[in-house]
Amino acid sequence: MHTAIATVCLSGTLAEKLRSAADAGFDGVEIFEQDLTVSPHSPEQIRERAESLGLSIDLFQPFRDFDATDEQLFQCNLRRLEAKFQLMRRLGCRMILLCSNVSESAVRDDDALARQLRAAGDLAERYDMLIAYEALAWGTYVNRFRHSYDIVMKAKHPRVGICLDSFHILSRGDDPAGIRDLDPERIFFVQLADAPHRDMNLLEWSRHDRVFPGEGELDLPGFVSALSEYRGPVSLEIFNDSFREADVTRTAIDGLRSLTWVADQAGREPLPPAPRVASYDFIEVHTGSLGEVTKILHHLGFRLGGYHRRKTDVQVWSAGSVTIVIRDLGPTGEPTRLHALGISVDDPGSACRRAEELQAQRVERSEEEGELHLPAVEAPDGTEMYFCPPGQEWLREFHAQPGEGESFITGVDHVTLAQPWHRLDEARLFFTSVLGLKAHPVEQVPTPAGLVTSQAMRGGLRLALNVAPEASEQGDFLAASYPEHLTLATNDALAAAQSCVDRGLRILDIPDNYYDDLAARVDLPEATLAELRRLNVLYDADENGEYFHFYTETLGTPGKLYIEVAERRGGYEGYGWADAAVRLAAQYRVLRDSTRGIPS
Amino acid sequence: MHTAIATVCLSGTLAEKLRSAADAGFDGVEIFEQDLTVSPHSPEQIRERAESLGLSIDLFQPFRDFDATDEQLFQCNLRRLEAKFQLMRRLGCRMILLCSNVSESAVRDDDALARQLRAAGDLAERYDMLIAYEALAWGTYVNRFRHSYDIVMKAKHPRVGICLDSFHILSRGDDPAGIRDLDPERIFFVQLADAPHRDMNLLEWSRHDRVFPGEGELDLPGFVSALSEYRGPVSLEIFNDSFREADVTRTAIDGLRSLTWVADQAGREPLPPAPRVASYDFIEVHTGSLGEVTKILHHLGFRLGGYHRRKTDVQVWSAGSVTIVIRDLGPTGEPTRLHALGISVDDPGSACRRAEELQAQRVERSEEEGELHLPAVEAPDGTEMYFCPPGQEWLREFHAQPGEGESFITGVDHVTLAQPWHRLDEARLFFTSVLGLKAHPVEQVPTPAGLVTSQAMRGGLRLALNVAPEASEQGDFLAASYPEHLTLATNDALAAAQSCVDRGLRILDIPDNYYDDLAARVDLPEATLAELRRLNVLYDADENGEYFHFYTETLGTPGKLYIEVAERRGGYEGYGWADAAVRLAAQYRVLRDSTRGIPS
Repeated sequence: MHTAIATVCLSGTLAEKLRSAADAGFDGVEIFEQDLTVSPHSPEQIRERAESLGLSIDLFQPFRDFDATDEQLFQCNLRRLEAKFQLMRRLGCRMILLCSNVSESAVRDDDALARQLRAAGDLAERYDMLIAYEALAWGTYVNRFRHSYDIVMKAKHPRVGICLDSFHILSRGDDPAGIRDLDPERIFFVQLADAPHRDMNLLEWSRHDRVFPGEGELDLPGFVSALSEYRGPVSLEIFNDSFREADVTRTAIDGLRSLTWVADQAGREPLPPAPRVASYDFIEVHTGSLGEVTKILHHLGFRLGGYHRRKTDVQVWSAGSVTIVIRDLGPTGEPTRLHALGISVDDPGSACRRAEELQAQRVERSEEEGELHLPAVEAPDGTEMYFCPPGQEWLREFHAQPGEGESFITGVDHVTLAQPWHRLDEARLFFTSVLGLKAHPVEQVPTPAGLVTSQAMRGGLRLALNVAPEASEQGDFLAASYPEHLTLATNDALAAAQSCVDRGLRILDIPDNYYDDLAARVDLPEATLAELRRLNVLYDADENGEYFHFYTETLGTPGKLYIEVAERRGGYEGYGWADAAVRLAAQYRVLRDSTRGIPS
Repeated sequence: MHTAIATVCLSGTLAEKLRSAADAGFDGVEIFEQDLTVSPHSPEQIRERAESLGLSIDLFQPFRDFDATDEQLFQCNLRRLEAKFQLMRRLGCRMILLCSNVSESAVRDDDALARQLRAAGDLAERYDMLIAYEALAWGTYVNRFRHSYDIVMKAKHPRVGICLDSFHILSRGDDPAGIRDLDPERIFFVQLADAPHRDMNLLEWSRHDRVFPGEGELDLPGFVSALSEYRGPVSLEIFNDSFREADVTRTAIDGLRSLTWVADQAGREPLPPAPRVASYDFIEVHTGSLGEVTKILHHLGFRLGGYHRRKTDVQVWSAGSVTIVIRDLGPTGEPTRLHALGISVDDPGSACRRAEELQAQRVERSEEEGELHLPAVEAPDGTEMYFCPPGQEWLREFHAQPGEGESFITGVDHVTLAQPWHRLDEARLFFTSVLGLKAHPVEQVPTPAGLVTSQAMRGGLRLALNVAPEASEQGDFLAASYPEHLTLATNDALAAAQSCVDRGLRILDIPDNYYDDLAARVDLPEATLAELRRLNVLYDADENGEYFHFYTETLGTPGKLYIEVAERRGGYEGYGWADAAVRLAAQYRVLRDSTRGIPS
């Protein structure tokens, strides 16, 4: 598949865009006209730059409002088109995108429109150019791909074909299966864009909220499947306000990953299969507050398993089937945080190859002879992900055994990773594509400093992503308190809470008002309610079951990590979102009352 | 008018919200239930806090989905309501907001609904409470204010009235004039919210994009006018994602300003009239790079008028009718920026009183005997605004005369102020209400580091506001380069550019590609195009006229200010937005190529 990306997807100057597209591994680009207009480099210089980077310039775009009922205006548009062909010749680009007309001057007659396109084709012939005619979803007269195709067939000019854009077709609910009926030779270009579902004006939706394939809710694999006969470039064209601000290198990699994913999903270029994920093999925490972290782990019923035989700053703790690796950063002032996740999979080598084909960066664990090889990659947020075979043989390096001792902790319920502002879509695609997880609907939770967005995913394990507003005027809550957590599973949250308190744990304090409200809205026995209140245990329920859970305070100072203990009863499938606002307000107060920077 | 604000409009903890509402000067608050639920303070403590701050608790909200076709569910809802009445008694609040049902269990029969509301009224009677029934715009059965009123009239219970919310009425295009037909005694509560026009789902629009009255596009003055017989609280209820992150003190002041404005516009509580604004009296620049700034002013044809007789670090420059005051900050590393605007008005005292009644902070100029008194206030962004009588008598303090010398500069065309992220709505309301300006539609301009939003306003003068993305991963462009500028008017931009170049000015370099594109899209004589290209002058046109303009480079290092020189021909009413992307890309490159922090 010849992969391409429109320069409008990327931030920076045109030169920066080209370099990033090439570095990520794209085959070509679409030049968005305005990027060239504002560039100090001549078309010839851009052509040379692209050539030296190994990029083809597959398309020049957009050419708007070409056809016209007014003959004088039409002649003027032909001259305008000719000027662009001259420019494209200097640029070394042979195809122009001609959008269906959105103005009042649009021709509303297929035959007349075909005649004007044929005139454009004659002009293209003279300059050895091709014209890809695209039906914009909000075109005045032409706004469906089938209509644009019929007009192109009527124009019957070898230089004139159509461009198919997944957004324009899927956003209005059209069935891409109809693409199979088209002559593939007449499809000159394909643009892909996904988008979250929005009940809003199509133009606004399209201009601001497109995302890469696999990051929205449109059926991009279905769309690409319908293109099985098409052999031209498949190009990303994403208008997204966040992309315009984002690090260009990272966006380009994210984009190519989305094309790799969609080519696999559509059966076009299969990847190694998604791994069979069993569970979390281990959780690795780095801390500059070792004493505080191990004390809380002890309160939670964990036991020290041992020290790594070689890396003396690394120790392992376990409770039930949960294994936590801790690296002591010493008194460096580094915050306590999740550094790595061990993912238990059937075939670590294949899982890692899949991740690498999805543009993930390899990470090398320092391993010596006699130590287990664990292949690993880095997630976009920097978290290391180790692919582990069953058996936890690596524990031998710690002189420890798997699953030592009895515990009220039965496993890992889920892990929540903090994501930087704007980066949720990228991270979701990474984890769903690399691990084959399925994303739940996104939730938003109010906090005293802004909305937190949460994305849960589920496969052989549960993983959630949290994004908080970065630029809140109420203080930088993201960097300080809420974001990452590890949720441990238990079979009896109330007993677990009692046991933790007996060992000395300070459970995060939950306001009485919460329990008053709970009493008004759920039908729990009074004795249970009293126990929940006494132990600071929260309660949620859905159609299928119930969720009892409590939180530790943040681990270490400064800390970015806290631990939750949760009991699922029945088929509860949630994550306690309804309670998250209570927790976040409590964490905000703890933080504000400390010296760490939220205005009081 | 009894003014109130819903706690959901404000960020922070409930205690912080109350203090900010009181500090701003509100009479009361609506307690949004979740704010209480997550608070560690008991209802009694909140009651005491509000009392000691002089705030009444006017409403408790929301109570959702009360009525039910299922009798058992209805009884359960009654018990839920009773629990809330008990809570409200502790809180010292006598009115609850009961929203129309949005669930499938909604009663779809006026008589049955009235019966259930009557039962709620009986319960309210026992607790000495009042119920304000509100038609949500997306209610399952009741979604128009007239319908909610008819049901309340049918319920015929002294404890049951309606709540009118401007958003729910105006967002769906209903005419508020119908409010005049209602019995004012049955209107228990009024909530105000404005919003920008959005062609999207009402619920999503309402939950994320409301703004304060005067900051959106709904007719709030018309709505409040229709309430002439109503004497209860008028309360702000704004769901806005940005407000949740914003500094709470500032949001509260912004909110009260919006109520002051709407009460004036509706003829309810008139302010001193908007001033008759003639022009800019002066522009005050503060700089740590005096040499560079004065050199560029000299290139632009300005002459030194003199030094302030007492403040030796202040000097005045003039060209034509333009007066620029410069304060030398010395080599402090402070960026060059606009510090103050002198606004020429008919009655400075009255203009300043109006501004103060609109919650503007007074600023005192250091004045001694024999110096002119210029009343002044501070805009939300910190810019000082001096109200100046005609004649520029203050120039005597500099031993200077108004309008000395001939110049190709004929006046100030407009001034553009940079606004912090999220603060555009607040600033627009401030300037339109204080100066009586009229806002144009907002424009968005792409830059290599994100979209810049621009808001132009026009009255006796032209003023524009710019907002850039603060958290761009491509570097902090806002703090460094683009934001503020002063646009000087000329009658001949090409001659002015030549004259400036002759004096040594370096005009911001505009790419050749811009002129190639210009040639393809506009019909200008070739000689003119060649002159534009040679002199780096840009060109825009609208239906009425043309705009010729050029830019200086940024003034001083570090600088936040540059100067534009512009010629309007015919009735051109724009600001050269089409060219702004070219300028921003050029400024981005200058910045990136310097050492000031944008990744290359």
